[in-house]
Amino acid sequence: MKTLKVALLGCGNVGAQVARILLDDAAVLEDRAGARLELAGIAVRNTATKRDVEIPAELFTTDAQTLVDGADIVIELLGGLEPAGALIRRALTRGASVITGNKALLAADGAELNALAFANNAQLRYEAAVAGAIPILRPISDSLSGDTITKVMGIVNGTTNFILDAMDTTGAQFGEVLAEAQALGYAEADPTADVEGHDAAAKAAILASLAFHTNFAYADVHCEGISKISADDVAAAKDSGMVIKLLAIAERTDEGIGVRVHPTLLPRTHPLAAVHGAFNAVFIEAENAGELMFYGRGAGGAPTASAVLGDTVAVARRVVSGGPLPAIANQQAVKVLDFARIATSYAIGMRVTDESGVLAAITAIFAKNGVSIETMRQGASADGAPGVADLRIVTHRSIESALAATVATVAHMDAVQEVISVLRVEGN
Amino acid sequence: MKTLKVALLGCGNVGAQVARILLDDAAVLEDRAGARLELAGIAVRNTATKRDVEIPAELFTTDAQTLVDGADIVIELLGGLEPAGALIRRALTRGASVITGNKALLAADGAELNALAFANNAQLRYEAAVAGAIPILRPISDSLSGDTITKVMGIVNGTTNFILDAMDTTGAQFGEVLAEAQALGYAEADPTADVEGHDAAAKAAILASLAFHTNFAYADVHCEGISKISADDVAAAKDSGMVIKLLAIAERTDEGIGVRVHPTLLPRTHPLAAVHGAFNAVFIEAENAGELMFYGRGAGGAPTASAVLGDTVAVARRVVSGGPLPAIANQQAVKVLDFARIATSYAIGMRVTDESGVLAAITAIFAKNGVSIETMRQGASADGAPGVADLRIVTHRSIESALAATVATVAHMDAVQEVISVLRVEGN
Repeated sequence: MKTLKVALLGCGNVGAQVARILLDDAAVLEDRAGARLELAGIAVRNTATKRDVEIPAELFTTDAQTLVDGADIVIELLGGLEPAGALIRRALTRGASVITGNKALLAADGAELNALAFANNAQLRYEAAVAGAIPILRPISDSLSGDTITKVMGIVNGTTNFILDAMDTTGAQFGEVLAEAQALGYAEADPTADVEGHDAAAKAAILASLAFHTNFAYADVHCEGISKISADDVAAAKDSGMVIKLLAIAERTDEGIGVRVHPTLLPRTHPLAAVHGAFNAVFIEAENAGELMFYGRGAGGAPTASAVLGDTVAVARRVVSGGPLPAIANQQAVKVLDFARIATSYAIGMRVTDESGVLAAITAIFAKNGVSIETMRQGASADGAPGVADLRIVTHRSIESALAATVATVAHMDAVQEVISVLRVEGN
Repeated sequence: MKTLKVALLGCGNVGAQVARILLDDAAVLEDRAGARLELAGIAVRNTATKRDVEIPAELFTTDAQTLVDGADIVIELLGGLEPAGALIRRALTRGASVITGNKALLAADGAELNALAFANNAQLRYEAAVAGAIPILRPISDSLSGDTITKVMGIVNGTTNFILDAMDTTGAQFGEVLAEAQALGYAEADPTADVEGHDAAAKAAILASLAFHTNFAYADVHCEGISKISADDVAAAKDSGMVIKLLAIAERTDEGIGVRVHPTLLPRTHPLAAVHGAFNAVFIEAENAGELMFYGRGAGGAPTASAVLGDTVAVARRVVSGGPLPAIANQQAVKVLDFARIATSYAIGMRVTDESGVLAAITAIFAKNGVSIETMRQGASADGAPGVADLRIVTHRSIESALAATVATVAHMDAVQEVISVLRVEGN
């Protein structure tokens, strides 16, 4: 039985679980991989740091480079661009295979790293980078390789799903729920990367690259977060049988492929609407397969470690059987669709003066901009002010720029006191 | 660019879609596979049969053996044990790779066919055999290869899910809904294989074999269908916040692995409870990954063809890159748990004489058999008879044989007029 030396870079929440499984389940992993997976060492900044998992002290080292240079397989769980990027490049250049969960690095330099791996007949796998424990990258790149994916919609950030789900259940405001999420450890002290959608945008770039056989980077993703979603928005959604989710969306149209992250209204009957708490899910539409959904835990030490170890066993099997690796499918030159050209439907809430002629004036502006109205509902103002009405318009599928022009014009009308919310709608 | 000759055996609903995609999407498939996939021929019983898809007449042949003997890749979509089995063995023995959706053959001879493939360095793939378009076999055998699966629960038969879902929605009886399903083409004229659970049992054997790295055959699966489920059962389930689904369940316990198919009560909050109509889904519990679910279309020409083509591209990539195939993970000797030793919880509905002492006598029998009661609810008889009460008992996790003994004893009590239903409960 061959022995493969595994270098682990990083020993945080996920890294410690990976170390535990490599040590405790060595016999099972050997059966599955067809090789002994020897944990050669763990590179950390401080070897004296206390870990949650019992790990022999002699495995720790601060010399990541030497560890990488002696390894057949490198598992990178440091996160961040550097030194992770330099160490991964060093490993791949040597022909060692790499497993990483580093979404920021992949969203920045994924195309270059994939090419570097192929040039050195080394494997690069990163199932853990998107949606934690959920097997999603392999089904997209392998199982659906004989099909054409048309759309991907994912709940890929557990923190924001936890917050939106709690707002939906309790009716509380964003700020209150965020504080609770921070107290429970579901949100970080600085929650910006999660609540402003940056984390989801990096994952969207990775998903879109695999789904559409091309290269998207973080900069190609339009990104809006959830910090402006109010309890009123959530209540209005509930009132119309919808729920608000932060979705990472990648869609192919005749004009190109648009990739975006924003709060989205979904009908409560949509499979993604049933994804609660910190769970993740990715919904896929393909020409032949139709609708698919993959659901599971998007974060956490042991779940993410499961994805890392699955990649590690797959990599080891391939190292044992040897031979050249299959070429990466032709990277198609696909046009990235500018966000202004995205087509979707919209729900617009506004507060208007309750007098004759206002509705006609507003609908005329929609028509002039080519935005077709699907439903319109007028009711007494939510704050009970006399002479004021709340108007809620849902449009047919329209172009983002046309909608933006419509809203800007409507907002300046004398009869319109306030545009309360503009939310995109999917799955209807 | 290498050319691989593909032999297609069978041209029914799925086969015709596979032929269409191989012909129409040849350029895309070539990109993905790294080889030209040439449809060398289609073996059919009658070359004159009219097909839904336009296929050049010269591709059809009745000589399946000659077609197989000239192929690099054989796609078997004939179904049934023979001649499918002989043709697959012939292909594998020659070293040709095989893609099949033949669940009956795999549930009978899967272990032998896998061994034959490995001995000839040929690939055998069968994603289409379980849950149609849903990528489920590859995630189990590859993505979760670094984890330990403890339980698999699947809605793997669309016909029965359509029927149970319609009974739940409309309150209709099994017979009425079955007739409707037959009229809509969701159920066959002879629905036995679907409604009695045989189709689901074959898929359960395949799922359990991959999930637990061992070999289960159809004969190892305990199988009960849905033909005895009444509108009253469905209404009683609804009344207690549950739904009835036909589940294929494979579970690892300290005593062994039990594989079974039977109608099952699930809480409406369980992810599987939201799987409606003819959709399929497979729910997995793994030690590290936690809970995962895979959802999509379980049948239909194009969706199933998507799974077949995904396997075909994967097989072609591996043929192009060459080299020996990885060994199959050690087939563990695992004890198949006899159905009498299965542990689950149960909901028992019975009609009893409404007099003092009856409850005490019934609960004493449960206690004597070691079946612990979780909840008990007594109400007026559903048929309104005076002096009669309906009793509904839900047990804690108990052993099947103990429950059977309990029910047999209770059914013979003078005070018990009828045991109305006994259903197993999961996910609670």
